[in-house]
Parts: sequence; structure tokens; C-alpha cells
Amino acid sequence: METCVFCRIVKGVSPATIVYSDEKAMAFMDIRPINPGHLLVIPKMHARYLSELEPDIGGYTFKVAMRVSQAVRNSGVKCDGVNIYLADGEAAAQEIPHVHLHVIPRYFGDGLRLRFRSAYGSLPDEKELEKIGERIRIAMS
Amino acid sequence: METCVFCRIVKGVSPATIVYSDEKAMAFMDIRPINPGHLLVIPKMHARYLSELEPDIGGYTFKVAMRVSQAVRNSGVKCDGVNIYLADGEAAAQEIPHVHLHVIPRYFGDGLRLRFRSAYGSLPDEKELEKIGERIRIAMS
Repeated sequence: METCVFCRIVKGVSPATIVYSDEKAMAFMDIRPINPGHLLVIPKMHARYLSELEPDIGGYTFKVAMRVSQAVRNSGVKCDGVNIYLADGEAAAQEIPHVHLHVIPRYFGDGLRLRFRSAYGSLPDEKELEKIGERIRIAMS
Repeated sequence: METCVFCRIVKGVSPATIVYSDEKAMAFMDIRPINPGHLLVIPKMHARYLSELEPDIGGYTFKVAMRVSQAVRNSGVKCDGVNIYLADGEAAAQEIPHVHLHVIPRYFGDGLRLRFRSAYGSLPDEKELEKIGERIRIAMS
């Protein structure tokens, strides 16, 4: 018995309002939409975190999210813009342990915004930015 | 004279703390970080909106964002999780008119959260979800 709810949806044993499905990826309606038309796009292969996801499958899933975004814009659902959003890890507010991209229709005055930590907006000095950049640069290589 | 600030960074005529660059994509530090280590990943080719972006380039840019996310996690920057975030259109809070993925390091207690519209959390009924899903399904095909 599959314990991952998204894997159960992939296998057809849990219900979902599926809008797209192919060999590698799937899109279905979020049951707790932030705005009407909020969708999730997932790779069919189980990966709990981004680090477990094959990069090509990640890129492919994003391409599907691009198509889904365009479809939402063309669907007649209230949609002046779109956010694509991914939470990787519990500290990033990931709730379902299967990689998923949120596709969130946005409209002017929808009341959705990010609440930042209090230090946001204070520009870091250039040396600070360069120091952090250098650490990430090293980790990239 | 290039008017897009990200195109100017790509061409090397505007400064940025670049952490990665190849033929098709580039990553550099956000100068107004939501959390320390906040990066932007962009396609080098100019596209104002997702709809103008070649899908393969979009998928590739996401793959670079996956690599950058892993690098941030490995860099020693405070990072228990990562959000990848894209704003497509002014209604979605897009500020720079060149497609970009935010890679935002997250840590427990960082105070960052989404503020939802007041109706959030009220489950839509299944019929409502199916009706919206059907419209998007049609727009996908």
C-alpha cells in the first residue's frame, strides 16, 4: 500500500481533479486553493526532495508547469498573472513529501502577499553579498 | 543601449555578484535578499513573460535553479530548506520584466510566510473544483 498521497493519485487509487497527465508528469487541482484555479504539477516518479529528483525530470516538470500556467490564463479563470512556487523541505513549508510545483493564478487585489522577516529591505553591503556569493560559487563547482 | 537590467547583467555592463553562468542561463545574488543567500536564476535570452520563453530554455533554467539550490544548501549559508519562486506578470508581483526564478534559502523561524486572502482554507466543493478543472483541461488541449 502506497503511503505517499501523490503517488496514490498517480496510481489512480486516490481521487483528484486531474487536468493533465503524461508518462512523466501530472497536473491536478489543489484541494485547498490559494486562489481559484490553483494547481499542482508533479513528477510521477516519487522524490521527496529536489535533491532526490533527476534533473531532467525536474526540468520537464517545470515545462509542464509553463504549459499549465498558459492554460490557466486561457481558461477563463480569473487570472492576470501566475506564481509558480516550490517548497523544498519542511523549513520551506513543504507539506506533502513528494516534489510539487504550485501554479497559482493571481489577480489584482487578490490579497496574497509574502510576509517578510523584519530585516527585509535593508540592503546588505556589497562585501557581504560577495562573501556569500563566493561560498555558493565554490559549492556550485 | 540595453534597457533591461538583467540583459545588462548578462552583457556584463551592469554589476552583479554572479555565482554561475553558462551559454543559456545565469545565477546571481538578489540585491534585496529575503534571506541571506537569496539568488536569482535567469535565462540569458530576453523574455518578459513565461509565454515568451522557449519551453526548453525554461526547463533548462529550472534545472540550473535545482543545482543552485543544492549549492546553497552545501555552502554553509543558513539553509534548512529552499523556496523556488517565479512571478509571471505584474498581478503576480513580477518587478523586473525578464523571467527569473528566485532561489530563497529558508530556515526554521525565519519569519517568512505567505499571507493569504481571507477565504483561504475554506474547501471548495468538489463540483466547483471539477468545473474549474474542466475549463483548464480544455485550455491545455
